Amino acid sequence: MQTLKTKPAADGFRMPAEFEQHRGTVLIWPVRPGSWTNGGREAQVTFTEIARTIAKSEKVFMLCDKDHLRQVADIFADDKNVLVYCISTNDSWARDIGPTCVVNKYGDVRGIDWKFNAWGGDFDGLYAEYEDDDAAALKICESINVDCYDAKHFVLEGGSIHSDGEGTVLVTETCLLSQGRNPHMTKLEIEQELKDYLGARKVIWLPRGIEGDETNEHVDNVCAFVRPGEVVLAWTDDVNDQQWTPSNESLKVLENETDAEGRKFIIHKLPIPKNPVRITKEELDSFVFEDGEDVREEGERLAASYVNFYITNDGILVPQFGDDNDEVAIKILGELFSDRTIYPIYARPIIVGGGNIHCITQQIPAGE
Amino acid sequence: MQTLKTKPAADGFRMPAEFEQHRGTVLIWPVRPGSWTNGGREAQVTFTEIARTIAKSEKVFMLCDKDHLRQVADIFADDKNVLVYCISTNDSWARDIGPTCVVNKYGDVRGIDWKFNAWGGDFDGLYAEYEDDDAAALKICESINVDCYDAKHFVLEGGSIHSDGEGTVLVTETCLLSQGRNPHMTKLEIEQELKDYLGARKVIWLPRGIEGDETNEHVDNVCAFVRPGEVVLAWTDDVNDQQWTPSNESLKVLENETDAEGRKFIIHKLPIPKNPVRITKEELDSFVFEDGEDVREEGERLAASYVNFYITNDGILVPQFGDDNDEVAIKILGELFSDRTIYPIYARPIIVGGGNIHCITQQIPAGE
Repeated sequence: MQTLKTKPAADGFRMPAEFEQHRGTVLIWPVRPGSWTNGGREAQVTFTEIARTIAKSEKVFMLCDKDHLRQVADIFADDKNVLVYCISTNDSWARDIGPTCVVNKYGDVRGIDWKFNAWGGDFDGLYAEYEDDDAAALKICESINVDCYDAKHFVLEGGSIHSDGEGTVLVTETCLLSQGRNPHMTKLEIEQELKDYLGARKVIWLPRGIEGDETNEHVDNVCAFVRPGEVVLAWTDDVNDQQWTPSNESLKVLENETDAEGRKFIIHKLPIPKNPVRITKEELDSFVFEDGEDVREEGERLAASYVNFYITNDGILVPQFGDDNDEVAIKILGELFSDRTIYPIYARPIIVGGGNIHCITQQIPAGE
Repeated sequence: MQTLKTKPAADGFRMPAEFEQHRGTVLIWPVRPGSWTNGGREAQVTFTEIARTIAKSEKVFMLCDKDHLRQVADIFADDKNVLVYCISTNDSWARDIGPTCVVNKYGDVRGIDWKFNAWGGDFDGLYAEYEDDDAAALKICESINVDCYDAKHFVLEGGSIHSDGEGTVLVTETCLLSQGRNPHMTKLEIEQELKDYLGARKVIWLPRGIEGDETNEHVDNVCAFVRPGEVVLAWTDDVNDQQWTPSNESLKVLENETDAEGRKFIIHKLPIPKNPVRITKEELDSFVFEDGEDVREEGERLAASYVNFYITNDGILVPQFGDDNDEVAIKILGELFSDRTIYPIYARPIIVGGGNIHCITQQIPAGE
């Protein structure tokens, strides 16, 4: 395993799309008392369901701190597709702290080790201690033997980018241009960085993500590729909903853009939950916050979105909220991914932590 | 990670020598009550010393069962070169149950997953339950992302072969022709198997190993390459010692052989301990044997040999027994490996388990 100082695009590497073949998926056992209700009691059940679902068609690389290794090893003792690694982190957002993987035409897979600053560092980061999170990507690469690009000069989370695998990358301005990321760089310089590291030729900037998303509105909650040239966009027809403006602004950008291959986008509207998902007093009381940690408030609206689904080798894991639109999302995604199994996952135990299924996963491509 | 049904030699792969560059070393935390005194209490201290010594210059892939994960994670919490994997085995002989790795000229590394039957299966195996041991090589390859050849048709332990990396392989007849290994195959067929899987052109058959070695006398206890064309041979000048005949027989073979490159061997005699290492009543009483497990007897001579050293990227780990010849072995190996650091390791806690430092390690080559 080597650490590389060169840049992926120059080395012939590109970021594959999530729907390309995976070797496996990184997950991190949830235990942070300020993120998960009752110290993870509910989230752990959901993470287990998600791990087992992913393990139907690919490996799961389950990271766990040393205090919970025994528990995790017991739970997955009979699932030979779940591999357990003793790696401590500050929380469980594998998407944002895991390596972003790139591949070349020879089937080689390499990771990228971005700088992680808990979604904003001193400016508006969500927790003050993130050293273990920041160190995780390299440890994952070491553990699974993937060479790794050093990109510690650049702050980025995996959830703030989506790649179609063919040269187009989707991002949001709210996140990538935030003062908490790379404020010393111009938009053009940031775009060049993405091209150099993801092997992209075109970066499409959506103005916003999901209103209230505490990651400065990661793209992976609002818009995702279902195949090259075709996306789903989080949507509401309710002009009074706070999400109406951001979604309409994104639609306008997508309608007027072409991708790296010159294609116009086919855009599918994926409704957000009909009833805003809000945190309850009971949930709030079950959190234990650290000093310097962003706290929630009773009734706070959570950034619930069906766009935060995750694509595995055989299926689509779709978050469910007990909402009227759960079925609508299942139907739309079922039609768009007709060659895969749709796995609905009741995801309230995850959304209370601030993200969803896509945020807690990070694919390691097969490089085939 | 792929499982391959082809053969390494035909694919352009060869088994590198141990003195070639390593990516890391597999170790397995010792806990078997029938192998280690006091359930591993003494062995764990020695394994820790060995892991830390290896970790000075390469990664350590430490396998551990789920009951001891917390202990192991605590011990190595500050050593970032020790990676902990939750993989259960029946015992701790990484050399014999880990994958034998081969490399090609492009730097690719692949494992070989031999059939393991606890050194003889029903014929003269040392324990009856070895399913987890037999499954370990593939799990290791999965965990560290090394493609793996399926060689389950052939019984072999890593300790029964030594490669010079240039086409020559050393084995012993007592082991490879044992009724407990591949009795349906002729010597010629076994030799062809070694050539096909290890990319070897010549197999040199020593008649014996170390007298009393319960592995049917693995070669890695009696003879090892220090570089191509040059070996150390376990030796005694005492004609009354039970080791005198086996060592002299091996010397005769080596003196009359050439390697795959046509070189005569330079042979260095490495004395065995002056005083036979015997198991004490106290040690014996601290074992707890399982049904079907080979038991030891008080005063039984252990197969102690300095040849069971291990080569890391920066050093040589040499077993020490509190014997007059400890210093002699250090001196000889120090001269032969003048470019590496000599690390003497007091190894009685391991030899009571039936093997030594080489037997508990398995290198994963860097493939450079």
